[in-house]
Amino acid sequence: MTNSKKIITISREFASGGTYIAKRVAQLLEVPYYDKELISMVAKESGFSLEFVEETGEYSATSSLLFNLSTLGNLYGSPGYTPENIPTVDKVHQIQSKIINEIASKGSCVIVGRSSNFILRARDDVLNVFIFGEETMKIERAMSIDSSLSTGKKALKQIKKQDRLRANHYRYYTGRPWGDARHYSLCLNSSELGFEKCCEIIIKAAK
Amino acid sequence: MTNSKKIITISREFASGGTYIAKRVAQLLEVPYYDKELISMVAKESGFSLEFVEETGEYSATSSLLFNLSTLGNLYGSPGYTPENIPTVDKVHQIQSKIINEIASKGSCVIVGRSSNFILRARDDVLNVFIFGEETMKIERAMSIDSSLSTGKKALKQIKKQDRLRANHYRYYTGRPWGDARHYSLCLNSSELGFEKCCEIIIKAAK
Repeated sequence: MTNSKKIITISREFASGGTYIAKRVAQLLEVPYYDKELISMVAKESGFSLEFVEETGEYSATSSLLFNLSTLGNLYGSPGYTPENIPTVDKVHQIQSKIINEIASKGSCVIVGRSSNFILRARDDVLNVFIFGEETMKIERAMSIDSSLSTGKKALKQIKKQDRLRANHYRYYTGRPWGDARHYSLCLNSSELGFEKCCEIIIKAAK
Repeated sequence: MTNSKKIITISREFASGGTYIAKRVAQLLEVPYYDKELISMVAKESGFSLEFVEETGEYSATSSLLFNLSTLGNLYGSPGYTPENIPTVDKVHQIQSKIINEIASKGSCVIVGRSSNFILRARDDVLNVFIFGEETMKIERAMSIDSSLSTGKKALKQIKKQDRLRANHYRYYTGRPWGDARHYSLCLNSSELGFEKCCEIIIKAAK
């Protein structure tokens, strides 16, 4: 029933502290950490620019008759997304999935975002974590990270936009709603539990 | 950011081991445990039968124009639910909510199910846990608990029925989808993590 988990994937709401927690867990476990690193790996293999890979790798999705049309409006507003490059967006996703699988097959690591819980679903040595938090904490955090978010209202708008794009991307590539507990091994409310306790719980769960 | 949590609510999928985990956590923390106990308290206060309170307290909901009509079919199939007793079902819910609030105000305890995470949402000393598990484990577990579930097919049918009723009840009284990680402090996959580790993580999170 309980095997030790070599790979840890961390999905997170925007400004929930998920990236900090993921980095800290990797540091404490002394294993490689993949977040922005994935972008350059995918850019190198695909030949696309870093900016385009960053956007399409986690925030865009291609069209589909089955895909909720009301969500598509958001995608059209994303850089790099036009009806002409539909296959390109999917190509980035394919290369990204291949690279995530290669990374996982090499051994212990922490991977942030990019629907990696879904990409690695065939493996039984993966601990899938979802980090989320209360709005008040996320607004404060977003404002302290990004100086262009000078008011709470601007920060909240940005939080909602980023999460909506992540949700669209997740739903498009996995067919499942983002944030449903049952897609993960473990879900943690970072503002309630605190970042350090989240790290401790993840490490306990992985062992 | 991190306060110690006196009250622990445990929501759970059918046959996920949530009840076992809740009982064990209460035992380890040496605090009162409320599950079936709530039924007799509500029955005593309301004057309704134990069977009726058990059914309506967690598995039924009343009609509403805003409530998804397609889910209502299930409710009409529940004992105790007829269009005539709509106010009765809501009355059970009201008395149950009042009792859950009274229990919480008395001090540390573990409360199972009955949308208690939502009922106690105004308090900041509550750790809300959601326990779920893989189908294979839940089928085995349901068969070992209930001897009338003699085949995997029967067990799966029962699991799906009970979870659908709990989801309807939760959605009706909270207006939110059941199983969304963001309604809890902590969500745990019991078949992946194992029951003992779930208990340890809950206790760590509450402290």
